[in-house]
Amino acid sequence: MRQTQGVRKIYVIGIGAGDPDHLTLQAAKAIGRTNVFFLLDKGETKQSLIDLRERIIRAYSHPHKRIVEGRDPDRDRTPADYTGTIADWRTRRSQVIEDLISQHLKDDETGSFLVWGDPSLYDSTIAILEEILDRGETTFAYEVIPGISSVSALAAKHRVGLNRVGQPFQITTGRRLAEGWPEGVDDVVVMLDAQQAFTKYPDADIFWGAYVGTEDELLASGRIADVGDEIVRTRSEARDRHGWIMDTYLLRRPAE
Amino acid sequence: MRQTQGVRKIYVIGIGAGDPDHLTLQAAKAIGRTNVFFLLDKGETKQSLIDLRERIIRAYSHPHKRIVEGRDPDRDRTPADYTGTIADWRTRRSQVIEDLISQHLKDDETGSFLVWGDPSLYDSTIAILEEILDRGETTFAYEVIPGISSVSALAAKHRVGLNRVGQPFQITTGRRLAEGWPEGVDDVVVMLDAQQAFTKYPDADIFWGAYVGTEDELLASGRIADVGDEIVRTRSEARDRHGWIMDTYLLRRPAE
Repeated sequence: MRQTQGVRKIYVIGIGAGDPDHLTLQAAKAIGRTNVFFLLDKGETKQSLIDLRERIIRAYSHPHKRIVEGRDPDRDRTPADYTGTIADWRTRRSQVIEDLISQHLKDDETGSFLVWGDPSLYDSTIAILEEILDRGETTFAYEVIPGISSVSALAAKHRVGLNRVGQPFQITTGRRLAEGWPEGVDDVVVMLDAQQAFTKYPDADIFWGAYVGTEDELLASGRIADVGDEIVRTRSEARDRHGWIMDTYLLRRPAE
Repeated sequence: MRQTQGVRKIYVIGIGAGDPDHLTLQAAKAIGRTNVFFLLDKGETKQSLIDLRERIIRAYSHPHKRIVEGRDPDRDRTPADYTGTIADWRTRRSQVIEDLISQHLKDDETGSFLVWGDPSLYDSTIAILEEILDRGETTFAYEVIPGISSVSALAAKHRVGLNRVGQPFQITTGRRLAEGWPEGVDDVVVMLDAQQAFTKYPDADIFWGAYVGTEDELLASGRIADVGDEIVRTRSEARDRHGWIMDTYLLRRPAE
C-alpha cells in the first residue's frame, strides 16, 4: 500500500497598494481558503498598514483561521554593500519564515503571506520561499496571486500612462536614479527613494504619490523646478507625522 | 437662481489580464455604478475576450445599464511611421468615442470603458479621453481604476520577481527589442511582440506566457537556446487556432 503524504500549500497574495478595494476576487478567495496567516512585523511604526491588513483578513477569512506572527530580523538600512546586505538579511529572514511554516502549518493545510502591492515588484517573499525549498528540509507547494502594484495605483490616481506611444520605460530605485538618468528611456518609475533623487532633474515632470489609495494619500505633479521643493517639504512632514513613508513617482522628460 | 448642469462621469476600468477573478472590488463597484458601457469592437476574432467582458458586465452591473457598441477605426498594422500612424489612429478613434459619449451619456450619468490589464500600460484610453477634453466640445469628469496587468499576471504564474534585488528593469515593445538589448538593464519585459524578437538573445532566460489567466493559457520558460524554437512553434500554432494571440514575456540575462 502506497502512503501519500499531505501537501502543505502556501499562497503569496498581493493585496494591493493600500486601498482595501484594490483586493481582487482571486485574492479574497485565497484568503477565504487560508488556514494560517503568517504575518511579519517589520518592527516599524506602520500601524495603519497593520490595521488595514487585519481588516482584510477579518473581512474575507473563515472563522477558524489562525494568525501566526513572526519578528523580522533587523537590517542595516544604510549598508556599504547593498546587495550583499540584502542577501544576508534575506537568508536570516528565510530561516525565521521556515521555522514559522514547519511549526505551524500542518499537512494538507494552506498558509498565506499577504504582500503589499504586487509580489513581483520589489518584494522578497517569492525569493525567500525558493531559498527555503532549495535547502530541502521544509517542503510545500506555493502559488502567487498578483496584486495592484503601487505603480499602477499611482498612475491611476494621476490618470497617466506609464509609457508613451511605442516607447519603453524603466522601473528603478532611488539609489540608482541618484547615479544618473537611466540610458535609453525618457520615462522612469522610481521606488524606494529615501534620498529624493528626483531633485537632480529640474527639467523633468514628476507624478508623485505617497500612501496612495489610503486616507493619508498625498499627490503632487508638475515640473520638478516648480514642485520639487514642495514635494521634499511635504514628504518630510508626512514622514514625521506618520513615522514612515511609502512613496513612488514617475519621472517624464521631454522625448528627444 | 443659479443653474447647475449635471456632470457626466466616466470610469476607465482595468479589468485584469484574462482571469475574471483578477477583477478588483473597486472595479466591481464601479461597474455596479455604471449606466452606460462603451464597448469598442476591434473587428478581430477575439470572441473569448468579448465573452469574458460580457460575463463580467453581467455579473456586476445593475439591471438597467445600457451597452453601446462602437466600431474601432481600421489601422495600418505595419506602418512605416509607427508613432505618426498611431497618433492619427488615436485621433480618429477619439472622434468615434466622443460621438458615443455625446450621443449616449446623459447629464449625471456614469459611463465606463473596460480595459484589459491595467489602463496605465500600453493602452490608449486615457490619452483618448484627454484628447476629447482638449477639443473642448464634450465635457465630463473621469477616473481611472487600476487593474492587474498582463505583466503582473505573467510574473505570478511563473513565480518570478520582475526585478532582481536593487536592480532596475525595463518594460518595452518587441519592435524596440528587435533593435537591440536595452542599455543599463539585464531584465526586460516585452509586450506587443509580433516579430518574436527574443530569438535574437539565445543566452538569455525567458519567462513567456500567452492568454495568461484564461483557459487557453500557455506558459514556457528556460534558456532561449533551449526553448526559443518551441515557443516560436507554440506561438504560431496558437495564433492559427485562436485567430489572435496576446503574449508577454520577461527576458533575464546573467547580471554582469
